[in-house]
Amino acid sequence: MVDTGRTNVPDQAPQAGPATSPRPAAEAPAARVTIAAIAQEAGVSVATVSKVLNGHSQVSDSTREKVEALLESHNYLRRRSRPTHTVGLIDLVINELDSPWSVELVRGVEEYAAQHRTGVVVTAVHRRPADTLRWLDNLAQRGSDGVILAVTELAQAQRRQVQALNAPLVVVDPVGNPDPSIPSVGATNWHGGLTATQHLLELGHRRIGLLAGPEDVLSARARLDGYRAALEGAGIPVDPRLMRPGDFHHGTGLTGMSELLALPDPPTAVFACSDLQALGAYEALRHAGLQVGRDVSIVGFDDLPTSSWSSPPLTTVRQPLSQMAAMAARIVLQGVDTVLPGGMRRLELATELVVRASTGPLRD
Amino acid sequence: MVDTGRTNVPDQAPQAGPATSPRPAAEAPAARVTIAAIAQEAGVSVATVSKVLNGHSQVSDSTREKVEALLESHNYLRRRSRPTHTVGLIDLVINELDSPWSVELVRGVEEYAAQHRTGVVVTAVHRRPADTLRWLDNLAQRGSDGVILAVTELAQAQRRQVQALNAPLVVVDPVGNPDPSIPSVGATNWHGGLTATQHLLELGHRRIGLLAGPEDVLSARARLDGYRAALEGAGIPVDPRLMRPGDFHHGTGLTGMSELLALPDPPTAVFACSDLQALGAYEALRHAGLQVGRDVSIVGFDDLPTSSWSSPPLTTVRQPLSQMAAMAARIVLQGVDTVLPGGMRRLELATELVVRASTGPLRD
Repeated sequence: MVDTGRTNVPDQAPQAGPATSPRPAAEAPAARVTIAAIAQEAGVSVATVSKVLNGHSQVSDSTREKVEALLESHNYLRRRSRPTHTVGLIDLVINELDSPWSVELVRGVEEYAAQHRTGVVVTAVHRRPADTLRWLDNLAQRGSDGVILAVTELAQAQRRQVQALNAPLVVVDPVGNPDPSIPSVGATNWHGGLTATQHLLELGHRRIGLLAGPEDVLSARARLDGYRAALEGAGIPVDPRLMRPGDFHHGTGLTGMSELLALPDPPTAVFACSDLQALGAYEALRHAGLQVGRDVSIVGFDDLPTSSWSSPPLTTVRQPLSQMAAMAARIVLQGVDTVLPGGMRRLELATELVVRASTGPLRD
Repeated sequence: MVDTGRTNVPDQAPQAGPATSPRPAAEAPAARVTIAAIAQEAGVSVATVSKVLNGHSQVSDSTREKVEALLESHNYLRRRSRPTHTVGLIDLVINELDSPWSVELVRGVEEYAAQHRTGVVVTAVHRRPADTLRWLDNLAQRGSDGVILAVTELAQAQRRQVQALNAPLVVVDPVGNPDPSIPSVGATNWHGGLTATQHLLELGHRRIGLLAGPEDVLSARARLDGYRAALEGAGIPVDPRLMRPGDFHHGTGLTGMSELLALPDPPTAVFACSDLQALGAYEALRHAGLQVGRDVSIVGFDDLPTSSWSSPPLTTVRQPLSQMAAMAARIVLQGVDTVLPGGMRRLELATELVVRASTGPLRD
């Protein structure tokens, strides 16, 4: 294993290394401050300091921060009792289990983990702090060999609680600005947007609409920029009237496409930033009495299993969700420095255009 | 809690009761046979007997059966060390994580379990014994407060291994003949088939086709019988030429519908025994230049989240998959006798017709 200069980021080391690796020399006992001394200085009980150390949630944020700060300033070293043996479980934490792509993440993690005789605990946190705290409590009780986060954002305090458990942490497809110290796995979103739009250009389309994803989601922004780059590469000016906002869901695909069809000169092809938005566009075309693929070409993004069953089958950009999830599982179980070159923390897997029946040549 | 006469089924008691319930008097020590005596009589090592007792998989089936038989004949009582405290985990075992309805089961179990501060370990066994053994090994190592099986069938030997873990066991939507001693949760499939077909009859349709599910799956058979019952109730003879075999998947919906359309007098409406088969029928109609809902009405079965996003949105029978899964979680965590009336082991939740845009009145 490559030494990645952990001494520069001592507070990040616990979650980055594999659970069973020998501790680097930089983490050997240095200052022998006791829990009792920390408790006295913080004005809290020994039990409270212990709770902070063990990642329990029954501590107020302000107390936790005070204790964490003292622990850090005294260079207190947590006992690393749990990682010396494996629990046989890893955790997948996801916002919602209601979208068709969530099952792809579960499948990818489960397949890899099962081959390594590890169970997968699946938790949905619904973007609610209370659910996250419940999960953290359960986690602190039973232990985990690693945590895969597929959530929009974990509050700073909660991330600290996860790190206090000394379990390796990996983020899948982070939508915010990923913390560069935490390993993360994504897809080549920009390239996917580029390929989707180039496919439509090759079919002769020039007025190409965009059904955008959420503005604050990095992957959606990258897809949009790929669309722009393809148009600009073909010498076609980007027309803001052809770009409609959205949120990856069916409803904004339907309304966005309806708005595009109401333009004096509607687009002949559309790149939807998610498969669900593409299906919404299908429905708008049906309402207008138009045929997908013949009258208007549609490209989606994701390639959910259901997308090959739409009518007509959807041309889309395959985002390798299950492989991304499997790679995240590999990183938590083997350690990031075994999986990626020294010091690397970010990995993107390739997207791929899958041409089916929803796109066709420009008519007239 | 109602006493359900456990003494009649002593070998089933461990998985039927809640993990933390006091042991009934019938299970108090009776014969003080030792593991060593069992081992000697079976001609195996003490370690092997211990493995059988603890549900490890590294024992041949023949040895396991011999040891189990001796343990039973000597009325050996397993030490119940694990169930005296909870592990904080339950297990959901599923055949595949590739169908849109699998995520509904995960969601239902996770939502209930999370409210009870319990994590959910999700395992896919792909109908492969090796995967089941890996899961059992992991389970034996870490323990579980209960097991929910959503698998086609668990071999007799494997079920015995699960029971040896003393974890409550519940089956969701069993497709074979459910073991009447194991609690199970299903849906009112017959009634769903009846309602779907009655809806088409009310719209004036008389030639109503059927895209059937797998012949060996009880729930599919019940849906078919509901279809028959509705036709017979309306005085319409069942026409075998209008019934096409299938397997719940998209492909057989497509081929079955194509065959129906090739008949000299094709049906004007079709009941598909799954949503995926209904979407296959959509595609066959598109190939034939026909409009779903106007030219031919289609009813599905399941109401997957994706079905409201099909174009046109699918009229279907809602199978409450996530609620069925939540009920199964409730049974494993609270005990079947807390959830169901005394002695009851089987529960079916109601299906419901959801009318959208894929069905319309008979034309001409």
